[in-house]
Amino acid sequence: LKEGGGGAGMDPFDIFNSFFGGGGGRSRQRKTQDVMHKLGVPLEDLYNGATKKLALNRHIADSQGRVTKKKEVLEVRIERGMDNGKKVVFKEKADEMPGALTGDVILIIQQAEHKVFKRQGPHLTMEKDITLKDALCGYKFTFNHMDKRQIVVESAKGQLTEPGSWVCIQGEGMPIKGNSFNKGNLFIRLTVKFPRPSQVSSEVLSQIGGLLPAQQPAVVGDEADEHVAKPMGEEEIVR
Amino acid sequence: LKEGGGGAGMDPFDIFNSFFGGGGGRSRQRKTQDVMHKLGVPLEDLYNGATKKLALNRHIADSQGRVTKKKEVLEVRIERGMDNGKKVVFKEKADEMPGALTGDVILIIQQAEHKVFKRQGPHLTMEKDITLKDALCGYKFTFNHMDKRQIVVESAKGQLTEPGSWVCIQGEGMPIKGNSFNKGNLFIRLTVKFPRPSQVSSEVLSQIGGLLPAQQPAVVGDEADEHVAKPMGEEEIVR
Repeated sequence: LKEGGGGAGMDPFDIFNSFFGGGGGRSRQRKTQDVMHKLGVPLEDLYNGATKKLALNRHIADSQGRVTKKKEVLEVRIERGMDNGKKVVFKEKADEMPGALTGDVILIIQQAEHKVFKRQGPHLTMEKDITLKDALCGYKFTFNHMDKRQIVVESAKGQLTEPGSWVCIQGEGMPIKGNSFNKGNLFIRLTVKFPRPSQVSSEVLSQIGGLLPAQQPAVVGDEADEHVAKPMGEEEIVR
Repeated sequence: LKEGGGGAGMDPFDIFNSFFGGGGGRSRQRKTQDVMHKLGVPLEDLYNGATKKLALNRHIADSQGRVTKKKEVLEVRIERGMDNGKKVVFKEKADEMPGALTGDVILIIQQAEHKVFKRQGPHLTMEKDITLKDALCGYKFTFNHMDKRQIVVESAKGQLTEPGSWVCIQGEGMPIKGNSFNKGNLFIRLTVKFPRPSQVSSEVLSQIGGLLPAQQPAVVGDEADEHVAKPMGEEEIVR
């Protein structure tokens, strides 16, 4: 899918300059440099598992000691629940040089941002808007998970949903690697959206207000400075 | 209030090691090192103005060339609207040495955290909880500003307050230095607190629900996975 830029366009003999230094006094066989690549992986592929193909240019040495450039395709197995930053090693897939061992190609899994889910290790988080009516009387909503399953989420009975509160959906997080039946949790943050003033008359609002518990009214002194609050968008605030 | 630690306990002759390097080829008179001190200042003092006293130990040279240690008290004038990080310079108040110019004492204003207000340059921000009733029918609340004035804040007429929204109170921010009539703005973030289930019966809630606009009900397929959301505290969530 991506062209590996590791040794491409490089004089093969320059590679000797980047050999591993033979430390520790032991005599050590020369080895061509390992090649590192970042591999961007959508969260869906880390959830469902996938196979990716990656084309790399490498130098190949034949039995006569001639070095030629060759395109090679690596097949990368993305396992369900693989961690962000995980290294996948292809042994001896770096450039070849006559008389030297061959280095490895190392791919580093780079989890891409998802538009709905965020990953937190084995868990997932998401945001969901609910209406004021749903917050007061209970909600039921659906969404499609990364494996296309429809998930239905319902509030616990008699539960009032405070704006900005979190709920936990057990077992709907990321698959846990090496255990196909085990998954983390999904945490959902519920934002309560109020009706627009056009959707509900001021008479209805005061009717609702009459049904709700009130606070003690504010005690205002003679010297107080009175202000009418000016509503503003979040983007206007200096933070 | 605080003991200045600048040159205290130091051999006065060591100070010669830290003289300013005479750059640029010009011959330059030796000078003892400037002393920097951080001065923690409560936000109230930056709002109202204040005078602080700071005790420092310094070396004093007399006319015979004798050097003695002396405690000296500096009076620091905190002006209304002074910036965080502002440097206040006391000329020639560092250690004295015979045959050298005397360096300065430099105080750096470090604005302390306030429990109600946060400063954003000339503006202030604060958080305020209001009830659901207030969010729907309008609110009026009071608070005491840093100069002890009582401030009354009232919602604009017919305004529904979305949870987490910001309002602006003009002219109730920080004083602007050098202009005693000019102040920044105060931005208030309004958090809507729902009644506790014990304060409002399920009958009343469904009565209220009947008055509010509803969403389209969720369409649930045969294959859907159904979950009851488990409410949780913000502190439980992994982020």
